[in-house]
Amino acid sequence: MEQAPNTSKTIGIVGLGLIGGSLGLELQNLGYQVHGLAHRMKTAKRAQERGLAQNISTDPKILKDCSIVILALPLTQLLQPDPKLINELPINAVITDVGSVKEPIIKVWQKLHPRFVGSHPMAGTNQKGVEAGIENLFKGKAWISTPEPTTNPEALETVKQLAISLGCKWLTAESTIHDKAVALISHLPVLISAALLKTTNFEEDESITELAKILASTGFADTTRIGAGNPQLGSSMMENNSSAILDWLQSYKASLRELENIIASQEWILLQKELEQTKIIRPEFLNE
Amino acid sequence: MEQAPNTSKTIGIVGLGLIGGSLGLELQNLGYQVHGLAHRMKTAKRAQERGLAQNISTDPKILKDCSIVILALPLTQLLQPDPKLINELPINAVITDVGSVKEPIIKVWQKLHPRFVGSHPMAGTNQKGVEAGIENLFKGKAWISTPEPTTNPEALETVKQLAISLGCKWLTAESTIHDKAVALISHLPVLISAALLKTTNFEEDESITELAKILASTGFADTTRIGAGNPQLGSSMMENNSSAILDWLQSYKASLRELENIIASQEWILLQKELEQTKIIRPEFLNE
Repeated sequence: MEQAPNTSKTIGIVGLGLIGGSLGLELQNLGYQVHGLAHRMKTAKRAQERGLAQNISTDPKILKDCSIVILALPLTQLLQPDPKLINELPINAVITDVGSVKEPIIKVWQKLHPRFVGSHPMAGTNQKGVEAGIENLFKGKAWISTPEPTTNPEALETVKQLAISLGCKWLTAESTIHDKAVALISHLPVLISAALLKTTNFEEDESITELAKILASTGFADTTRIGAGNPQLGSSMMENNSSAILDWLQSYKASLRELENIIASQEWILLQKELEQTKIIRPEFLNE
Repeated sequence: MEQAPNTSKTIGIVGLGLIGGSLGLELQNLGYQVHGLAHRMKTAKRAQERGLAQNISTDPKILKDCSIVILALPLTQLLQPDPKLINELPINAVITDVGSVKEPIIKVWQKLHPRFVGSHPMAGTNQKGVEAGIENLFKGKAWISTPEPTTNPEALETVKQLAISLGCKWLTAESTIHDKAVALISHLPVLISAALLKTTNFEEDESITELAKILASTGFADTTRIGAGNPQLGSSMMENNSSAILDWLQSYKASLRELENIIASQEWILLQKELEQTKIIRPEFLNE
């Protein structure tokens, strides 16, 4: 017999880093009782000092009265979850995650819990760890869910209402379409940005790189920003979305080759037309 | 017999767009008399209304009493200068330019004027035209000169003092080294950023690009910013620095290929190490 959903105002957060900590601060502001699960005692203590949740423990039993549990863990831990954690997740709670790649997470979690809903907020900063959580991280950002035919509709509605109460715009998509879309707008940019930084190592004449270091300004800063982010997160995103990323990379190389051919054949009017096109494309993606 | 240098406090500015207009405002603040030369009557009128110079004309004769003339023109006009302009440049004035590619400009101008000094400020916004000039554009920015063995030392010193009076950091470099350095930190980034925008056209499944448009956020915004700049300026930079750009593009493709191979062979620890390296490289370029 299916258990009735738990309607308590207690929310559990597993992991109190950037997303988990920010959720903890925000959900307390919204009047929820927040229980936080940390991996290490030191983190739990610091999270308590920072007030990221009312009750914090390293023991998964802290999740027992929660009506919603948010898994705010790194991708690798979402994909190979700790059995002790799984055992303590209340069967009548709604479980969701914040992982930025959805298909592999859903494959694992739809077998582990009947009320699991794959989702994540499109929010972040370049900070991580227990000091990273901040208020107002989510307001106005998208929160996307990738429901399966088997997803419990009530559980989905619960996550939707939670996201909306945080000020997020609610979206749903198929997980494979989601993963291909984020590969384009988030993972491929990390790769091409990192490749630009790596290119600076190819020059043997130090007078050129030394001058470049002095002259580098906003253009270089913008283009290289996400290629110099969290290496572990970057590698983990690539690992868990590699086929979509490699597909886009083929298109990217074709696109680069076309521009190279235009330059090599000195077709400057055509190059200007190409740059007129890219100037039109960008605002379509950024609602500018 | 060489003429004595003109020591008047009158500076001429040819072209009153972003750089020329900003220089006009700043130099007047520093107590100079500024004479501006505009191409069109309409521009001259608007520049006068905005107070970009005390005296503005479309007749190059306005430059006749100037001790310094700054050629604040687009690259194409610097490389194919108007003969009427050349005829009216005072022989005893110091002439400098603001073009971001130096070798081709120097090749043209060192034959045209005995006191020409190739230089440019590393400053800009994404605005252009007569409305673009603003105050405080130059303070703290680099102003780089690329003197040749034949460059007049007094003229070089005059440009240096002018740049310093504007609050700029003065630098000198060989023109070929300069052009290769800016190809890396400014022109190559335009190309790889534009190629990312162009890549979005390769997807045939509209549900993916439509979702990508909704989800695109700061990472995509940063990486595509300079690929959506002024198309004419972008094309003109590529045209006048194409061999340096094509050289860097080979290195960039090699760098991208190395990252692709790591992903294709699923070497995630190695990928993380690569991203740790790029995280170290970036602050070396941006003094962070």
